[in-house]
Formats: sequence, structure tokens, C-alpha cells
Amino acid sequence: MEDTSQRRPLIFVGNDDGYRAGGLKFLIDIAREYGDVFVAAPSTHQSGKSSALTVDVPLRARLFGEEPGLTAYHVGGTPTDCIKLAVSNLMPRRPDIVLSGINHGYNSGNSAIYSGTMGVVFEGSFLGVPSIGFSYGDYSAAPDFSVCEPVVRHMVELAVAGYLPTGVCYNVNIPKCDRVAGLKTVAAAPGRWTEEYDCRIDPHGYKYYWLTGKYVSSEPDSDKYDLYWLQRGYATVVPCRADQTAGDAISQVDGIVQNRL
Amino acid sequence: MEDTSQRRPLIFVGNDDGYRAGGLKFLIDIAREYGDVFVAAPSTHQSGKSSALTVDVPLRARLFGEEPGLTAYHVGGTPTDCIKLAVSNLMPRRPDIVLSGINHGYNSGNSAIYSGTMGVVFEGSFLGVPSIGFSYGDYSAAPDFSVCEPVVRHMVELAVAGYLPTGVCYNVNIPKCDRVAGLKTVAAAPGRWTEEYDCRIDPHGYKYYWLTGKYVSSEPDSDKYDLYWLQRGYATVVPCRADQTAGDAISQVDGIVQNRL
Repeated sequence: MEDTSQRRPLIFVGNDDGYRAGGLKFLIDIAREYGDVFVAAPSTHQSGKSSALTVDVPLRARLFGEEPGLTAYHVGGTPTDCIKLAVSNLMPRRPDIVLSGINHGYNSGNSAIYSGTMGVVFEGSFLGVPSIGFSYGDYSAAPDFSVCEPVVRHMVELAVAGYLPTGVCYNVNIPKCDRVAGLKTVAAAPGRWTEEYDCRIDPHGYKYYWLTGKYVSSEPDSDKYDLYWLQRGYATVVPCRADQTAGDAISQVDGIVQNRL
Repeated sequence: MEDTSQRRPLIFVGNDDGYRAGGLKFLIDIAREYGDVFVAAPSTHQSGKSSALTVDVPLRARLFGEEPGLTAYHVGGTPTDCIKLAVSNLMPRRPDIVLSGINHGYNSGNSAIYSGTMGVVFEGSFLGVPSIGFSYGDYSAAPDFSVCEPVVRHMVELAVAGYLPTGVCYNVNIPKCDRVAGLKTVAAAPGRWTEEYDCRIDPHGYKYYWLTGKYVSSEPDSDKYDLYWLQRGYATVVPCRADQTAGDAISQVDGIVQNRL
């Protein structure tokens, strides 16, 4: 058997903002210090794409970077398409670690379900390897990601050292601030989006609707949730599972479904 | 206050196969027996769209059916766009029940995470109302959905009667068979997709990749999981949560993240 003990880790890096995004470059540069990096990022902006797959048209993969320790493709599909195609057809072997981001904007509260950044991470978790998504709460056109660096390094070091349990994956959010106050492991804040669409009238008199809205936490004062800590200058780690089965509800629901059949 | 005790339930019906799909019509026809029905389905086929949102272009909504007890729109976006826009701008009030499907094809195993059918259901669960997705394991062009009828009626009746807990939502899969053998409440079968892409060469000599693949359960012989029962002629109910936080892992992960900071 091949001796893999001394081999550098193979780190997959993806995102949802597309292969030209500053957050991706920042994450790649850090990841390269810890292993060989393989990038597959969307050819175009793919925010809000969740775990969507492209089924109606085929995918193309185009090489945009190749140097020692780095191979980088962009793929004309969703964030999930990118990692699936990379793992099944482009990479020399399965990755040891999956990283995604750094997203331009938060994926806190229930936004994780819509997040293409987290789509990559959930896919990574199906591979049974440590999978971490990073999101930064700066919505400017060209953010300076340097405040994220200690948090990203810490999580990547934990992953490389084998300390992170792989039965879950990780949604890391980092607040826009001068210096992160600390790192809290918590749950995603429950809540809902309000004022979701801006209705306008086109020049021909017909309605059209722009997605907008704001997230209202239903537990704004509880320190159990990510939004509480992000608002106080802390970065947050939410351990997540791709499998949405509510295991604790199975027996109650089975009773209801069976008894009344 | 308005007396709502005698009011017919308002039932939202969506899907991911688009507003012309036979499975949608079948579900609408059953739902109308139990309440007033409001439909918002995608204008085009949206399979595999997960909980994706449309952010870069505005949405349009077009009325395609209006008669007593039924209002039906199609929306030029994803399944999740459809229910979000309906609830925030098109419906007279929030729905009492959310139904999605009947999907043309299974959403069993880990397919729920890619499923637009379930995207609608997760969105319904954020509203705190009973939310059920139905999927039928028939992949033919124009399936006969009549074998689904007893299962759909049973679940809709449980929802209308208020028996279904709303802290979870429901992923119901129905096997292609002559008569469903029963209904089992179980977990989504763990596993992974293999042979995911069919690589072809275009007329100009370049590679392109079609999504394909098959799902391999890692627990094929366990009766705890949906695939086991579907293969034996049973319909399955998987209780799900939209929130993917792994609550049971928070304290272990916090220890790891904090101790090594």
C-alpha cells in the first residue's frame, strides 16, 4: 500500500461568488500553506443557489490556474456542480478537506439553507471529510478579508490536524470588525425573512418582483444562536448535518401516521 | 376578531416539475376537496433546484387558473421563489397547509437536499404550518398517479385535522406498484452518488459532462431507512427539519474550537 502518512493534504476549495471573487483568492492563499489545493469554482456568480444541481444542460470545466501545489478550474454550473464534477472527474484523488468561501456576506440564521457556500460544504460532508464554509459579513464591493485570517487559520489547522469530527460539517460566520472578539460554537438563529419582495411596475404596466427582505430572529436575546454573537463581534461556528431527517420525531410521527391509517 | 373556526383551510400547492406537470394537477385535484387551493408553480422545469433563490433577475407571476376555490399562478423562478413570492405578495393570507409535488421521481435517500419539491416544503416549515412533499417513483413521461391517492389523502387529512406536528416537515415517497403495501415513518437512507458524470467529446474536440449517477445506500439491509421500504412496496414518511444545525454536536465542537484557540 501507498504510504500516505507524510503526504500533504489535498484541500478542495470552492465558493458561490464565482472564481474571480476576492474571498476565494483569500481562502486559496491560506489553504496553500497547509496542503495541495484543488479549486473548482463557478464560472459566474451563484449566490443563493443552495444545493442546486444542473440537470438540463451539460457542464464545462476550464482550467484557470496551474502551478506547483495548485490546480484551479472554473465550471459553468452551480457550487454543488463544481465540487461533484471535481471529485468525480477532475481531481487526482478524493480531497482530505473541503473548504468553501470566503463568502461575500453572512450565511447566518436560516440563510444556510439558501447558501451555495454551504451547498459545497454539505457535499463535502457526504465524502466523510472535514468540510468548512466561511462567510464574512462585509457587503462592500471589494472587502478586505484580513480580519478573517485568524479564524480561517484556526479552523483549517483543526481540520488538518484531524481534530474536527466528520459526522458534522461547519458553517463559520465572521463579523465585519477591526478584530474578532472570539469564536463561539452555537446553533443557527431561528427566525424568518420579512418584506421579501420589492414589487415594481415595468414600462408596459406589468408587475415584477425583486428579492429583498430582512431576517428577523425569533430569539434575538439568546446567546445560544449565531446572530447574537455576530452582533457582538464574535465569529460563530454552527455544526451542521446535510441529512435533514428529524430522527427524534420518527417514533411520534410513526404513531400518528400508523394509528389513523 | 374574525371567526376562523369554520373557514375552509387555505392550502398552498407547489412543485418543481413546473405548472404543466401531471403530478401537480393530481395533487391540486385532491387538495381542492379539503380546502381552498392556491397554486404557485415554476413556469419551467426546475428539478434539482434545492432551496435555490433567484437573486440576479426579477420574478414575474402569471395567472393560469382562477375559479371558485382555486387560484393558480406560475412564476418564472425556482420552486422556493414560487412559495416565497406567493406568501409575501400573491396570497390573500398565509396558508394553513403547504403541499408540494407530486414529484415525477423519488426524493429518497440524500436526494432531499437537491430536491426542489422539498425546497417548497422547507419554506413551508418556516411558516410554522404542516408542510408535506410527495414524490412518486415513476420515471415515465406521463405517469398514472392513482396509486398515490390513498397516501396523499391520508397525509392531507392528518394535516387538515391538525394531527401533524409542525416542528418538522414531511418528505413522503411512494413506490411505483399496483397498490402501496403500507406507510413507514423512517430516516433518509445514508449513502452517496456514484458514477456521477458522463463525459463526452463535442464536435470541436472539447469535453462536456452530463449529470447522471446512481445512489448507493450504505445501509441497504436496514429497515430504519426509506430505500429499504420503498424497494418492498411501502410508501415512506421522513420527518425533516429545514434547520441543519447539529444541536447534539455543539458542546463537543465548542470544546475543540475553544481549547485550541
